[in-house]
Amino acid sequence: MDNTNGIKEILSVKNNLSNEAPIGVFDSGVGGLTVAREIMRQLPHENIVYFGDTARVPYGSKSKSNILRFSRQIIRFLRTKDVKAIVVACNTVSALALETVQEESDIPILGVIAPGARVAVQSTKNGIIGVAGTEATIQSETYTKIIRQMNPDAVVIGKPCPLFVPLVEEGFAKHRITEEVIDIYLSDMRKTEIDTMILGCTHYPLLRSRIKAYFGEKVHIVNPAYETAMDLKKILFERGIENRSERAAAYKFYVSDAAEKFTRFANGILTYDVASTRLVNIEEY
Amino acid sequence: MDNTNGIKEILSVKNNLSNEAPIGVFDSGVGGLTVAREIMRQLPHENIVYFGDTARVPYGSKSKSNILRFSRQIIRFLRTKDVKAIVVACNTVSALALETVQEESDIPILGVIAPGARVAVQSTKNGIIGVAGTEATIQSETYTKIIRQMNPDAVVIGKPCPLFVPLVEEGFAKHRITEEVIDIYLSDMRKTEIDTMILGCTHYPLLRSRIKAYFGEKVHIVNPAYETAMDLKKILFERGIENRSERAAAYKFYVSDAAEKFTRFANGILTYDVASTRLVNIEEY
Repeated sequence: MDNTNGIKEILSVKNNLSNEAPIGVFDSGVGGLTVAREIMRQLPHENIVYFGDTARVPYGSKSKSNILRFSRQIIRFLRTKDVKAIVVACNTVSALALETVQEESDIPILGVIAPGARVAVQSTKNGIIGVAGTEATIQSETYTKIIRQMNPDAVVIGKPCPLFVPLVEEGFAKHRITEEVIDIYLSDMRKTEIDTMILGCTHYPLLRSRIKAYFGEKVHIVNPAYETAMDLKKILFERGIENRSERAAAYKFYVSDAAEKFTRFANGILTYDVASTRLVNIEEY
Repeated sequence: MDNTNGIKEILSVKNNLSNEAPIGVFDSGVGGLTVAREIMRQLPHENIVYFGDTARVPYGSKSKSNILRFSRQIIRFLRTKDVKAIVVACNTVSALALETVQEESDIPILGVIAPGARVAVQSTKNGIIGVAGTEATIQSETYTKIIRQMNPDAVVIGKPCPLFVPLVEEGFAKHRITEEVIDIYLSDMRKTEIDTMILGCTHYPLLRSRIKAYFGEKVHIVNPAYETAMDLKKILFERGIENRSERAAAYKFYVSDAAEKFTRFANGILTYDVASTRLVNIEEY
C-alpha cells in the first residue's frame, strides 16, 4: 500500500465514523430488538450493528459489577465496528451501568430509562406512575430517581416481574399462562391509583397488548423504545452525524450464543428479514 | 522456609489431595444443590467445594461450544481448591461436555446422566421411559443413547421443559402456576405408556412432588442425585481416596454472581446452614 492509498483509507474511515458509520444497539438478548425496530422505523437511513448477549441472558437477576463488566466488553466489541453512537437497549444496563460507560466514552451512549421516564412524567395526570421491570432495575430505583428529578412530587410504584423475560424468550407471550403471571405480579399495582405505567424492560413490549388489556383504558402504557429512537434522532442531527446517504440501510446482528434461535426470533419481531446472525466470543473483548 | 518445612508441605499437599481433599461439585446455579445434598447425606465425611455459575445461568438454552468453555473454566477454578474428584451436578453439562472434560482430566469426573439412566433401566417394566430436561439436554439425545446402550429395546420419550428452571429460581415451585406449566409440558407424555420418568435436570427434583402427583402411582419418578452420590462413593472407595477423617466435613460455596440470593436459596434446600457464599470472577479461569 503506498502513501496515497493510506491517506485515502484514513479519510474514508474518518468519513465513515462521522455519518455513514452504524449505530450500535445492544441488549442481554432479543428484547432490545423492540428498540432496534423503532430506530429502523424512525431513522430508516441509519445502519445498525446489533449485539444480543444470549450467552449470559438474563441480566435482570445479576449484580451491578457483572452488568458493568458485560457492558464494557460489549462496548469494546461495538467499537471494533466503528459505531458512531450506542443505544443501550436494555433497562437493566441503563439502570446499573449507563452513567459509568457514558463517562468512559467519547461517542454518545443513550439509555432507555430517561426517555421512558420523560414520557411518563408528561402523560401522567395524577403523578402516580407504575414501573414494571427486572429485579435489578426495580431495586436500583433508577426510574424513581429520574422521574423525581423531573417531577419531585411524583409517586413511583415499582414491581419486579422476573418471569416475564423467560416467558417471552420461551415463546409464551400469547399463552394463557402469561395472563396469570401478569395477574400474580401486577394485581397489587392495579389496585393503586396509577394512571401511567412504564414497560421498564425491553422484553415487555412483546406483552404490551396483554398488559394493556389487564389495566384497561384508565392506565396509559409507556413503551420507552419510541422516545429512545426520538432522542437518538435528535442527537445525530444536533451533532450533524446523521446518515445522509440514500442507500438502503444495512443491519448486522451478532450474538454470544445460539445464533439460529436468535435469527428465528428476530424474524418474528422485525419487519426487516434477518438473513443470518453471527456468533461472537464476547469474553475476548 | 527451610528444606524440612518444604518437604512437610509437599507431603501434606499430597496427603490432602488423596483423602481429605474436597469433592468439587458444580452446576449452572442452585439446581446442583439437590446433588450436593445427596452427597452430604451419603458421604458425611467428605468435604465439598460447590460452584454455581449464577452469572451465566441458565445453561439449558445455550450451545455446546459455550457449555464446554464454561465447564473448562469451572474445572480450572475447582482444581485451584485441590479437589480430588468432580461431580458435574448439571444435566446440560453432563449431556454436552462430560466426555471431553473427562478425557482432559487426571482426576475422576462424574456426571448425572449415566446414574439416572441406570436406575430408570432397572426400574422400568415395559421399557418405556420418559425424560424431562432442558432444551439442550433433550436435543442432545444423550439420555436416549445411554439408555439404549443398557437396553437396546428401550423406548425413550424426551420433553424439553425450559420454564421449569426460571420457575424454580424465582420461587414459584409451590405456586399453582407451576401446576399449569407442568400440564402444558407434560400432558402429551402422560398420555403415553411410560412407567418410569427421569427428572433430567437438577432443578426438577424441587418440583418432584408436583410432578409425581401429576403422573400418579403408575409412573416411577427417578431423581438421578441419589444414584450419582452412590457412584461417587464407589469410585472413592475403589481408589482408596475416601476421607477417613473423623472431623466434621467442611462445605464451601462459590458463585459467579448474586451470592446473597444463592445463600438464601441454599438455606432453603440444605439441612446444613450455609453461612456465606463467596464470589468468583469465573471468566478469569
